[in-house]
Amino acid sequence: MNMSEKLNSFLDVIFSRKSVRSYTGAIISKNDMEILLKAGMAAPSGRNEQPWSFIAVTVPVILEKLTEGLPYAKMLKKAGAGIVVCGQSVTHSRPGSKDLWDQDCAAATENILLAAEAIGLGAVWTALHPYHDRQETVRRILNVPQEIFPFCLIPIGYSTWEEQPKDKFDPAKVHWEVW
Amino acid sequence: MNMSEKLNSFLDVIFSRKSVRSYTGAIISKNDMEILLKAGMAAPSGRNEQPWSFIAVTVPVILEKLTEGLPYAKMLKKAGAGIVVCGQSVTHSRPGSKDLWDQDCAAATENILLAAEAIGLGAVWTALHPYHDRQETVRRILNVPQEIFPFCLIPIGYSTWEEQPKDKFDPAKVHWEVW
Repeated sequence: MNMSEKLNSFLDVIFSRKSVRSYTGAIISKNDMEILLKAGMAAPSGRNEQPWSFIAVTVPVILEKLTEGLPYAKMLKKAGAGIVVCGQSVTHSRPGSKDLWDQDCAAATENILLAAEAIGLGAVWTALHPYHDRQETVRRILNVPQEIFPFCLIPIGYSTWEEQPKDKFDPAKVHWEVW
Repeated sequence: MNMSEKLNSFLDVIFSRKSVRSYTGAIISKNDMEILLKAGMAAPSGRNEQPWSFIAVTVPVILEKLTEGLPYAKMLKKAGAGIVVCGQSVTHSRPGSKDLWDQDCAAATENILLAAEAIGLGAVWTALHPYHDRQETVRRILNVPQEIFPFCLIPIGYSTWEEQPKDKFDPAKVHWEVW
């Protein structure tokens, strides 16, 4: 594979990623889940703190509980799995430091979404942070400790191909040299 | 190129991305800058608001001003270019809505970092948000309107290959089914 093919393949993934909300219901292999989790942890993090953790849910009864509790995650019922990306604040252990855990979790989430697209799976980012009620629902169902913040829930499934990628490029959003 | 090659190529990019802080000083083509900006805008955003904008800086005198003003962006001086990712709050126009612009900007930033790796460039995420002083410095130098929040500055350059990717996979950060 030459450099140009490699480049095109990568940009293909970036531009073909879409928010997939309709799934076939097929199960997701543990191997595929591990690829996604490794991709998440390959993200950059502020001060290299890697303040993230991941709850990988594949058991149908737990997926159903999350579906029932979360109004914006109804698609989870037919997804084969879900990943809850969680973050941890540093303000207790390092007074004066600013929290970057939400930015770090967002980068990890984007890596997971792109890796899903690359291996033929569909996924969608459903926000938990900064919605306190959704975070508490997830905390209760998944037994998440108080010092850990559920950041987002990513349903993972095989797409029914109802969704297509959007072309969101807008040259008006680019300012050259100064605003 | 078969599916397996495509997959390996994509995961290569995710796992070989590193924070590059040492650059040769070579200039970056406008075409490469546009690839990075397109990759940024291909990120997902909450409620599809796409609340981002981008300042693409290639003029040396402006890069120098930013270098002087920002204590954590000294590497910018030898980078050929920089991209300031900016966000906009929705709380004025949609009272009651929660802001997701920082998460959206983080996803766009990660896309830019990965695209840079894919096309043979080095880049690094330097945080501006939530550091008010850094944001005001960038606002002043680049004439950024008050309603726009500088989120991060990404120096872009040709790497001198001093940095290597880190293997950050940690199985202890994965919880299966529940915490």
